[in-house]
Amino acid sequence: MARIVMKFGGTSMAGMERIRNVAARVKHVVEQGHEVAVVVSAMAGETDRLVGFCKEASPLYDPAEYDVVVASGEQVTSGLLAMTLKAMGVDARSWLGWQLPIRTNEAHAKARIGEIHTIDLLSSMRGGTVAVIPGFQGMMEDGRISTLGRGGSDTSAVAVAAALKADRCDIYTDVDGVYTTDPRIVARARKLDLVTYEEMLELASVGAKVLQTRSVGLAMKEGVVVQVLSSFDDPTQQDLPGTLIVSEEELEAKLKEDKMERQLITGIAHDKNEAKITLTRVPDRPGAVAHIFGPLADAAINVDMIIQNVGRDKGETDVTFTVPGADLARALDVLESQKEAIGFNRVIPDTKVAKISVVGVGMKSHAGVASTMFQSLADRGINILAISTSEIKVSVLIDEDETELAVRVLHTAYGLDAPVA
Amino acid sequence: MARIVMKFGGTSMAGMERIRNVAARVKHVVEQGHEVAVVVSAMAGETDRLVGFCKEASPLYDPAEYDVVVASGEQVTSGLLAMTLKAMGVDARSWLGWQLPIRTNEAHAKARIGEIHTIDLLSSMRGGTVAVIPGFQGMMEDGRISTLGRGGSDTSAVAVAAALKADRCDIYTDVDGVYTTDPRIVARARKLDLVTYEEMLELASVGAKVLQTRSVGLAMKEGVVVQVLSSFDDPTQQDLPGTLIVSEEELEAKLKEDKMERQLITGIAHDKNEAKITLTRVPDRPGAVAHIFGPLADAAINVDMIIQNVGRDKGETDVTFTVPGADLARALDVLESQKEAIGFNRVIPDTKVAKISVVGVGMKSHAGVASTMFQSLADRGINILAISTSEIKVSVLIDEDETELAVRVLHTAYGLDAPVA
Repeated sequence: MARIVMKFGGTSMAGMERIRNVAARVKHVVEQGHEVAVVVSAMAGETDRLVGFCKEASPLYDPAEYDVVVASGEQVTSGLLAMTLKAMGVDARSWLGWQLPIRTNEAHAKARIGEIHTIDLLSSMRGGTVAVIPGFQGMMEDGRISTLGRGGSDTSAVAVAAALKADRCDIYTDVDGVYTTDPRIVARARKLDLVTYEEMLELASVGAKVLQTRSVGLAMKEGVVVQVLSSFDDPTQQDLPGTLIVSEEELEAKLKEDKMERQLITGIAHDKNEAKITLTRVPDRPGAVAHIFGPLADAAINVDMIIQNVGRDKGETDVTFTVPGADLARALDVLESQKEAIGFNRVIPDTKVAKISVVGVGMKSHAGVASTMFQSLADRGINILAISTSEIKVSVLIDEDETELAVRVLHTAYGLDAPVA
Repeated sequence: MARIVMKFGGTSMAGMERIRNVAARVKHVVEQGHEVAVVVSAMAGETDRLVGFCKEASPLYDPAEYDVVVASGEQVTSGLLAMTLKAMGVDARSWLGWQLPIRTNEAHAKARIGEIHTIDLLSSMRGGTVAVIPGFQGMMEDGRISTLGRGGSDTSAVAVAAALKADRCDIYTDVDGVYTTDPRIVARARKLDLVTYEEMLELASVGAKVLQTRSVGLAMKEGVVVQVLSSFDDPTQQDLPGTLIVSEEELEAKLKEDKMERQLITGIAHDKNEAKITLTRVPDRPGAVAHIFGPLADAAINVDMIIQNVGRDKGETDVTFTVPGADLARALDVLESQKEAIGFNRVIPDTKVAKISVVGVGMKSHAGVASTMFQSLADRGINILAISTSEIKVSVLIDEDETELAVRVLHTAYGLDAPVA
């Protein structure tokens, strides 16, 4: 017997027919003797509908009331799933965010989960009752409803799994696991059996949209074993394993157990949501760069890649860097307000760029990985605009139009292609 | 300065444009210096949508989870109204049923309101913040959500007004007050300025669908002055008075103040939702009738009019009575199960009947009122199938097809027609 948290997203909860499928899947797990808590999203489209009302009410809507409105979407699906389970003969009840409660900090519409009270929940689950918990929501210290920001239900599920000391947190999605790269780009992408939290963070944050980044970070911090699997496989069939997301130690142990060797590279990610900004003719003096990146940091704008080009004139240089595309307008405002302090000539924004990342905890030498990367891209005439590295990845910025080509080239270059069937 | 509870129904809350109109109306009252609490229904159609999901989940859905699902409708509108008010510069916040809390008894989907905690609410209202409260919902002792049954928002409003010791509870509807009869039937129906709780109970329960019956009963018990008025008049115009619902003493005092005389008859109500049942050849022996009405009472089926006809054979009689149309199928089941005990021959149901009631606290003699009624109907050839009376009304059962004719005839007979304009 294990204690398992199952999480279902909006696509899986879109309408009663799908909710019945979810209930059948939960029933199947319960019948295997497990203690189960289910975390659910709102029906697909419902949160957009509710956010639409708020925006119609006022572009600058009150975030506390926004939370009251949008939290209702998950309230509805948790009630519907609990009653569907009961109708199927599986004892179940919903526990709303304020009923446990799931405590959050005081940040409406982007709250972070703090303590989750589990005494009543655990005693109910031990009595054989499936707990159905709306994702995305909690309660603040003052007793008002809070929500976690879009995509927050993954984080809710991991937080609940941590609080329950669950054996596993199964995240059901519309894909059957984490792949070596986006299968829509590379038909021969392979499903990964195992991936570390660190790799998943890189894969998620650079474009493999399977899990919300924040939920992976929380799972890593709390040591929650997460499994990503499909909600569309037949639940009565032998369980099809998805991808397990674990710590590096667990990965090593499992590889040893299965007598498998670790791959150098785990996957290739791409991200078209970056924007490049070039400031021309920045004075090449101590502190100039601080005038650029200090104010951006103060505005909570995350700068990723930075290149300082060779100046055209003595004492001047061009500075290029990337920011999230969503922050571009704000970043340009900040830079404009600092124009005098920085002393640049022109600011040139460019959103037609993509970041391609090669990710792997097994990466022993960046140099080796990087040289394969640069050579493969150069062979196909793909120009590299910028480079950045972290412990487990090497990223390059390229022209957006070359994204798919670059991903395919690298997937083959690192030997990730599945054997031809 | 007064303390006023304003209640808006689903039609008034259907979409952001209408919610903005409601907010403008609330703002207008706030600007007159009043302390305001607003009770809101879900958007028109939303509760039906949510109930539809529950029925799809299971015809025998779990009532506790039903409450979780359907309570979300009012949660959404209360958040939207509060944020709209704030956007208009009126300080406001939503208070959900569990946040006050509004305590109810342990009857999911048909709860009754108990205590309402108002300490935080009152302190917030005294600080100039409009309280927006979702109608129809509360919290049970075990901390779970309860709802009051359909139309419960009127009751919520009156209960909140009682708990706040409000000076008035204004119920905004799609009519501008209570009329002497249904204006769709009688064009010359007059709006009533004043009506007593007892009259309103009769007018509401027999078909003037302005207020939920339970809310009028509660207002009477708690002495809450209720005003029914239109939510579609221009809120910035001089306030148009609707109909005030008060105690008999208050009515007398107000009539005296205005040097007005009391009308003998206040209004004419009709109800097509009754069903007539006739049991033929019931043995005319002591206890036979108890075998009919005892089991019906046990099944919580309300029997209204009863006639025992002259038997055709010695020792046998036909028994006719009416039940709410919604309970007809259940009533027939009960009677069938008691067939042997009762000993009737046949059961003849008839839903093509209507109950017409003449209502007025000023009714000094039933005989006088009744004779006018019978004579007026007889003059138009309308056959009376059954009669019942209470302290303030005389009701007759007639053929459903003659409903409108009977209402018009009686409206004129009691001098209720407005002068021709």
